[in-house]
Amino acid sequence: MIELPYLLKAENIARLEDDKLLIGDRRVYPFEKRFETCSDINEIANALKSMVTQGGGPLQVAMTSMLYIGKQMQKGHMNAGFATLVEAANLLIQARPTNTTMKRTLQAMLKTLEASDDFIVEIPKVVDSWQQYYDDIYHRMGKLGSTLIPEKATILTTCFAEHTFLLSLAYAKEEGKEIQALVPETRPYLQGSRLTAPSLEEMGIKATVITDGMGATFLSEGFIDLYLTAADLVCMDGTVVNKVGTLANALAAKQYQVPYYAFSISPDPTSLSKADIHMEWRDAKEVTQCMGRPTTLPTISGLYPAFDIIDSSLVSGIVTGKGLYKPEEIRKEFL
Amino acid sequence: MIELPYLLKAENIARLEDDKLLIGDRRVYPFEKRFETCSDINEIANALKSMVTQGGGPLQVAMTSMLYIGKQMQKGHMNAGFATLVEAANLLIQARPTNTTMKRTLQAMLKTLEASDDFIVEIPKVVDSWQQYYDDIYHRMGKLGSTLIPEKATILTTCFAEHTFLLSLAYAKEEGKEIQALVPETRPYLQGSRLTAPSLEEMGIKATVITDGMGATFLSEGFIDLYLTAADLVCMDGTVVNKVGTLANALAAKQYQVPYYAFSISPDPTSLSKADIHMEWRDAKEVTQCMGRPTTLPTISGLYPAFDIIDSSLVSGIVTGKGLYKPEEIRKEFL
Repeated sequence: MIELPYLLKAENIARLEDDKLLIGDRRVYPFEKRFETCSDINEIANALKSMVTQGGGPLQVAMTSMLYIGKQMQKGHMNAGFATLVEAANLLIQARPTNTTMKRTLQAMLKTLEASDDFIVEIPKVVDSWQQYYDDIYHRMGKLGSTLIPEKATILTTCFAEHTFLLSLAYAKEEGKEIQALVPETRPYLQGSRLTAPSLEEMGIKATVITDGMGATFLSEGFIDLYLTAADLVCMDGTVVNKVGTLANALAAKQYQVPYYAFSISPDPTSLSKADIHMEWRDAKEVTQCMGRPTTLPTISGLYPAFDIIDSSLVSGIVTGKGLYKPEEIRKEFL
Repeated sequence: MIELPYLLKAENIARLEDDKLLIGDRRVYPFEKRFETCSDINEIANALKSMVTQGGGPLQVAMTSMLYIGKQMQKGHMNAGFATLVEAANLLIQARPTNTTMKRTLQAMLKTLEASDDFIVEIPKVVDSWQQYYDDIYHRMGKLGSTLIPEKATILTTCFAEHTFLLSLAYAKEEGKEIQALVPETRPYLQGSRLTAPSLEEMGIKATVITDGMGATFLSEGFIDLYLTAADLVCMDGTVVNKVGTLANALAAKQYQVPYYAFSISPDPTSLSKADIHMEWRDAKEVTQCMGRPTTLPTISGLYPAFDIIDSSLVSGIVTGKGLYKPEEIRKEFL
């Protein structure tokens, strides 16, 4: 089994220590390996709200939180009623309302636990089974993703595409393919420079950082063989929603005939098309600073649309937990 | 006459004070209004090499340097031979070899001065006449540019497109047009956030900063009416060369049917097509830092192609000193 980089090891995303739950702080990585220490469920929810972790992080925090609550209940530090567990799960869901994977997983866990004789005793088994479920999917998607990578390839990405992307490259490397990645820094949070590039380097894959305006440049000059990103959401018509900056690269990839694949564990059957997507705007102040320092005058404001909506005509295929599909096949498989 | 913003006022680009030549430092603007003080022609050349000023800045520095040398010669601080003037001009040209406007202007000045009876006495007149020549062109191109702007328009740009772009928006505003600009920050040097946005604000035009990955996003959602940039070079076949990041926006503008115009005082008759363009790579260390602070691990490297090459099929027109032309008309007018 391929080893995950520091950032994606479950214990570095969230872990229990004594009566605390620790969350790895992705806002300061790789400059600091800092953990946010939470002493109750409110502190955990607040850490999620403050973006201490992102991407697949909140799901891992939610699973570890279930373990944490079970332990606190066993020790008598928390009311051991099932309603308390439901309340805690709802607090986490509300902290990150757009993270539907975390929400669906927590709700499925609660359903299983509610039906059990002793839910507190069952929690570790249920959490472990979900952990195994996701680990299996990540590796299956990674193996599938690796088959899309040519023998010798420079791969463009955007933001921090986590397990499925990193494992795709790792499996390709394991198969002896000669690969390297071009990583746009992904302003304003610099997930590309701070998370993706160091994780690739740790996995022995050469990663070179470029600015967010350079993807089209390298695509136009024939430097890139493949464009791979995560997807925050895939609609039933094959529309892909991902971090702002993805669209510019997808348009250029199409123009210069470079395939673009997105990873999505499960396309969302409640989103039929672009019309169902809510355009999320984040704090514009992020755009007029970099790592906490202002990049312009305080009188000037920014705009921060969080996501791009990528038309299915720009997408070569979608790697899902069930297999690889063309955008037009998504409806038939997932609706 | 419309007043130029602080950054483009000739005296803030370069001016004489006592026996010194002062160059406005664009690397720290708008956080500091600092000047680099130069005591001889070598110090001026070194300041140009260190990118104290950029864009049209070196041309202004070169003109002020001619005044400086004339004055130093009159005071007997410099050898008053014409060869000394030629040598000084060559030092400046060598400091920024790709700045062909500065080179051509200095060479034209030398030619005029060489033919005069007393070149030292003539310098101020010759410099003044060139200053007037460029001021006229800037305003003429600005007026022409303003005619491309709709009555109510949001204009996307890239980097710091200086006089012609800023004057186009200023004339449009003067004509009562309701305009605002979306300004990509333009990493790694942040010319958008630091130079363009503050200059527009100073001129009373609303400027909103976005990251370099967001141009396509706003174009795709119908926020943008017009894309306007400078051009470092325009080839005879209408190919436009401009700051990296321009291509991604030009591709998206084409896709979403938004016109793209570039400003170029004079397309370059020695560059027939893309084949004649030398791809310039700058120090990759710039890409892995922001305002001097590292954005990733020191073991990870970057890539910094300075310019994008934009195919003429993506260009609606080119605003030149002679008028507005379609890309396919450039050869006929300028070769």
